[in-house]
Amino acid sequence: MSTYAIVMAGGAGTRFWPASRAKTPKQLLPLGADPNESLLGATLRRIEPIVPAERVYIATGAHLAEATAAIAPNAKILAEPVPRNTAPCIGWASQVIESVDPEAVIMVLPSDHYIADEPGFVEVLLRAVQSAQRGIITTIGVVPTRPETGYGYIEAGEEIAPGVKRGVRFVEKPDRARAEEYVASGRFLWNAGMFFFKAAAMREAIARHLPELASGLAGDVITNFPTLPSISIDHGVMEKLDELAVVPGDFGWNDVGNWQSAWELAAKDQDGNALPPGAVAVQSRNNLVRAPSGKVYALVGVSDLVVVETADAVLVMSREQSQDVRYVVDALKDRKRTDLV
Amino acid sequence: MSTYAIVMAGGAGTRFWPASRAKTPKQLLPLGADPNESLLGATLRRIEPIVPAERVYIATGAHLAEATAAIAPNAKILAEPVPRNTAPCIGWASQVIESVDPEAVIMVLPSDHYIADEPGFVEVLLRAVQSAQRGIITTIGVVPTRPETGYGYIEAGEEIAPGVKRGVRFVEKPDRARAEEYVASGRFLWNAGMFFFKAAAMREAIARHLPELASGLAGDVITNFPTLPSISIDHGVMEKLDELAVVPGDFGWNDVGNWQSAWELAAKDQDGNALPPGAVAVQSRNNLVRAPSGKVYALVGVSDLVVVETADAVLVMSREQSQDVRYVVDALKDRKRTDLV
Repeated sequence: MSTYAIVMAGGAGTRFWPASRAKTPKQLLPLGADPNESLLGATLRRIEPIVPAERVYIATGAHLAEATAAIAPNAKILAEPVPRNTAPCIGWASQVIESVDPEAVIMVLPSDHYIADEPGFVEVLLRAVQSAQRGIITTIGVVPTRPETGYGYIEAGEEIAPGVKRGVRFVEKPDRARAEEYVASGRFLWNAGMFFFKAAAMREAIARHLPELASGLAGDVITNFPTLPSISIDHGVMEKLDELAVVPGDFGWNDVGNWQSAWELAAKDQDGNALPPGAVAVQSRNNLVRAPSGKVYALVGVSDLVVVETADAVLVMSREQSQDVRYVVDALKDRKRTDLV
Repeated sequence: MSTYAIVMAGGAGTRFWPASRAKTPKQLLPLGADPNESLLGATLRRIEPIVPAERVYIATGAHLAEATAAIAPNAKILAEPVPRNTAPCIGWASQVIESVDPEAVIMVLPSDHYIADEPGFVEVLLRAVQSAQRGIITTIGVVPTRPETGYGYIEAGEEIAPGVKRGVRFVEKPDRARAEEYVASGRFLWNAGMFFFKAAAMREAIARHLPELASGLAGDVITNFPTLPSISIDHGVMEKLDELAVVPGDFGWNDVGNWQSAWELAAKDQDGNALPPGAVAVQSRNNLVRAPSGKVYALVGVSDLVVVETADAVLVMSREQSQDVRYVVDALKDRKRTDLV
């Protein structure tokens, strides 16, 4: 019984503009601690000890297939003709893998997250794979470190195997008060979008809970793709399962949500600055500058800024307003500057 | 009796780094209100109605001669082999002009200042020229608008002709309390480095007050230049004159001292931003962005910044700390990055 991975690499995030564009979304960018490794590249490297590249299936958009293959030359690329959310994508990839190996155990992983404790992460992965091998669809729940309102949560029940708990229910992004309750209870974990199952178990779950998807997958998938129901695996399958396992994990997870996260993850000098080589900083603290141009950056009397230079654009932003970069993307779309977004 | 101009264009300012460099100092940059006109170009255009280009002598460094001639193709360029402050430069240029026109009346003007009220300025120039024609060395004193400690002052006495006063004395940059006294008195004016004289009057003043300079100028000036006394015309001549006239002027003068001044002078939108074409500003106020690269600039949640991009460097600075850009230049010199300064 071999382990396979489906790596979800279809994201089209605008939260890292101007570095991220429609054709170079977040997972293709070096937004983790190593400025020379893309988030997708780091994802593949982390699982390499337990899932060799030839058993990795990367699900991405057709327009990203080439750039994705450049990062992962030995993986299989599944190019979705149109984006239809995660359930069709996972259903399709599972079916492809089952056709190759009917006994396959599959892990589904996002391609655009950061993990600080890589050995700890692999340990949790192995535990989740073991759980899936026992026939139960399994997820990882990240032990929360703050009452975050931007993530969904998973309620965990009693232990059903060493380090594995019963998954009671998925809950949507909570408000602040609810999030504080969740964290205080010790029973709630963050949903990080990682799922583990035998190929047959997922096929059966889709047949039962998403019959429309199952019949679409039975025919010519590429042709049918635009007609498949656009629904997440969470809503379409996970939330409806009679039985679910969850493996709590605490491995320094970061979803790299925006430039603020990138500053948190970047290697910084004693003044909290993450700057390109040769930069000069005068009375300046806690800034992130990303500029592959090679220009010499000089900062004077500025703090808590994000500066990102690309070949055609420069962003200068208050780090605390990192989520507002979307207003820039909106403004550029309004002006029909599709070359810039 | 014709009027000539000596335009002092030898400045090597570092206060506009990264736009200003050893080979592109301040006067060659478009730092006034018009982003397409250099300060030197504006200086020449302002005096054109009263001093045509062929009677303009631009004193500059040999390394700047070519770039200066490109801006002023019809003016005469006097290229100093080494910088020796203003007295040798003015003595030399006056002598050259006197050899062409023994009756010449000469105005000495800085090349790197901004003037808002150009007709008002020309009126003051004409009054100063008239005063000089009467044989008295004359200066312009700018009516102070604040107790500035960064400029020298001229004390004015009684009126000796309509709009012309007796120059009592030059005083050095004062401390704050002294500057406040000066402004309150109504008798003190800013020294803006503008001087007016008959060629013969300056020759005689130099012979009397700077005999060492006079004898150096008597021989081969280019050969002698490195041996001439390095002294300002203010210290060497003006302060020692028995008789001096000063014309008070109030014409929106700005010495364009640093990027703060450039922001003050720039055309700004309703949020106080001076940005390149196509820029997007979200919750951002009172910023200056200079970027001839054509890149699209996006500002998010930032205020009171100066951002300057050149082909090889980018400055991001708190506008209020504009004077501190020199620390960047110092740091780059320490690192032997002479390519950048």
